[in-house]
Amino acid sequence: MSGNEKKANVARDPNWEARVRDILARQPIVAAFGMEVAELSPGVCALAIDFKPELAQQHGFFHAGIVSTLADNAGGMAAASMMAPGSEVLAVEFKINFLAPAKGERMIARAEVIKSGRTLTISQVTVSMSEGGRETVCALMQQTCMAVAQ
Amino acid sequence: MSGNEKKANVARDPNWEARVRDILARQPIVAAFGMEVAELSPGVCALAIDFKPELAQQHGFFHAGIVSTLADNAGGMAAASMMAPGSEVLAVEFKINFLAPAKGERMIARAEVIKSGRTLTISQVTVSMSEGGRETVCALMQQTCMAVAQ
Amino acid sequence: MSGNEKKANVARDPNWEARVRDILARQPIVAAFGMEVAELSPGVCALAIDFKPELAQQHGFFHAGIVSTLADNAGGMAAASMMAPGSEVLAVEFKINFLAPAKGERMIARAEVIKSGRTLTISQVTVSMSEGGRETVCALMQQTCMAVAQ
Amino acid sequence: MSGNEKKANVARDPNWEARVRDILARQPIVAAFGMEVAELSPGVCALAIDFKPELAQQHGFFHAGIVSTLADNAGGMAAASMMAPGSEVLAVEFKINFLAPAKGERMIARAEVIKSGRTLTISQVTVSMSEGGRETVCALMQQTCMAVAQ
Repeated sequence: MSGNEKKANVARDPNWEARVRDILARQPIVAAFGMEVAELSPGVCALAIDFKPELAQQHGFFHAGIVSTLADNAGGMAAASMMAPGSEVLAVEFKINFLAPAKGERMIARAEVIKSGRTLTISQVTVSMSEGGRETVCALMQQTCMAVAQ
Repeated sequence: MSGNEKKANVARDPNWEARVRDILARQPIVAAFGMEVAELSPGVCALAIDFKPELAQQHGFFHAGIVSTLADNAGGMAAASMMAPGSEVLAVEFKINFLAPAKGERMIARAEVIKSGRTLTISQVTVSMSEGGRETVCALMQQTCMAVAQ
Repeated sequence: MSGNEKKANVARDPNWEARVRDILARQPIVAAFGMEVAELSPGVCALAIDFKPELAQQHGFFHAGIVSTLADNAGGMAAASMMAPGSEVLAVEFKINFLAPAKGERMIARAEVIKSGRTLTISQVTVSMSEGGRETVCALMQQTCMAVAQ
Repeated sequence: MSGNEKKANVARDPNWEARVRDILARQPIVAAFGMEVAELSPGVCALAIDFKPELAQQHGFFHAGIVSTLADNAGGMAAASMMAPGSEVLAVEFKINFLAPAKGERMIARAEVIKSGRTLTISQVTVSMSEGGRETVCALMQQTCMAVAQ
């Protein structure tokens, strides 16, 4: 967000980190795609994966759906980190713009919670590709998640 | 779209079907996920995949990112079918609402072009899950694609 | 939505129509813009306004923001019609594509609820312009609303 | 965008400011709503309006559509500032999340271009309300604009 000083996000759940890491551990797709936690703090989550040729589109870059998958998961975990004890996180919706081809060796999606309410949490996610030591932003997501009782 | 009679989409490229099928054939992710073409006509594309446990989230259903991947690809192919000869299709952006858990044996994403201009094509995509012979809509996408010279 | 038979929407509140019309009556913007209810049934709302030169952009057509305003209000009222007695409707978010200039004498936004849950309601809205007896779709919206206790 | 250093936006058109101010001068809605330019530089535009009771929804706050209108116009002008000489700006689509009621004396929408290509420009817009000297973010938009030859 431009033009506004952001207040730091404060977790509602002292056990937030274990809860978030447990969700990731229970997602088979995390192991299948090799998703790694690059950053995790209340309201912030960055996930990364190395390029995999089988997840490519016709030009040999990550498919837009895979870019979306990593961004959605990072946003969901950032949202989950802000939720009350005993909550499950559900993706309500997201919107993503693709800014550049997802070309490179490694993709990282950095999510930040913008507003965390009792029910809904809104996050922004920036996805970048690393290629030869240079990082390029390739997508931008705005996402809404919902807390539901477990 | 409600409240308006839709004009049938007419392809600009007599060779549209071969061009669309060729894009799919060149996408490694199509084989990796087992995507099948369930329907294909000018401005319309439906893609389906069987449930795969490794593409699941923490509850054992398709991850929202995989729902988005199938929908994005169906929308992209519907858009590609309307583009001029020699065009490549690029996803500019999409927005997706998740309406129900993607629970079941098979997922199908049905895309329809709403407006096809010279540069931009807008599509709507409905994603459904089949479970025990019953079909439930689980997501709704609105997508913008762009034609670029090959 | 393409490819799926839609179940008819059934109102949770026998008093839904009075509740929706009352919200509209309490919105100063409805009178200011001359919004009229063109259609109203459970899960469906169409609102219309005549062209007003002061709401135009630089080419003399309705500003994209006014197209969005009419669509957002139609979607909100369609959502409100499906909510439980005593609920207030809040717009959570929407996404709108502009398909053609909003050029003509009268604009109509037709909203239909796609999914109505206890908390969230998702609608699609199609906006058309009438010009010389001919109607052209000029925008497409996907919207999420939330029910909050009054 | 989080996690990435932004390059400064550099205008393609030495005459960008006159061009942007001219578009605003030709929009009747700017005068009708009392929109003022609060900030303008290449890739950045902030627009502000004082609260007007006739633009309110049922609780007496700015209608979500008016929030969207200000944000869309700020985004459009930020995009226009980056376009080549002789270009017109068209809104392709946007997505907006409403984070808090638009309650207060004055609304300001701050737009920043994230990516400016030859054809498409993507911007982020943050909308805030001032109430008694305190500023609260009430909406967040992600927008796509298109350059078309005049």
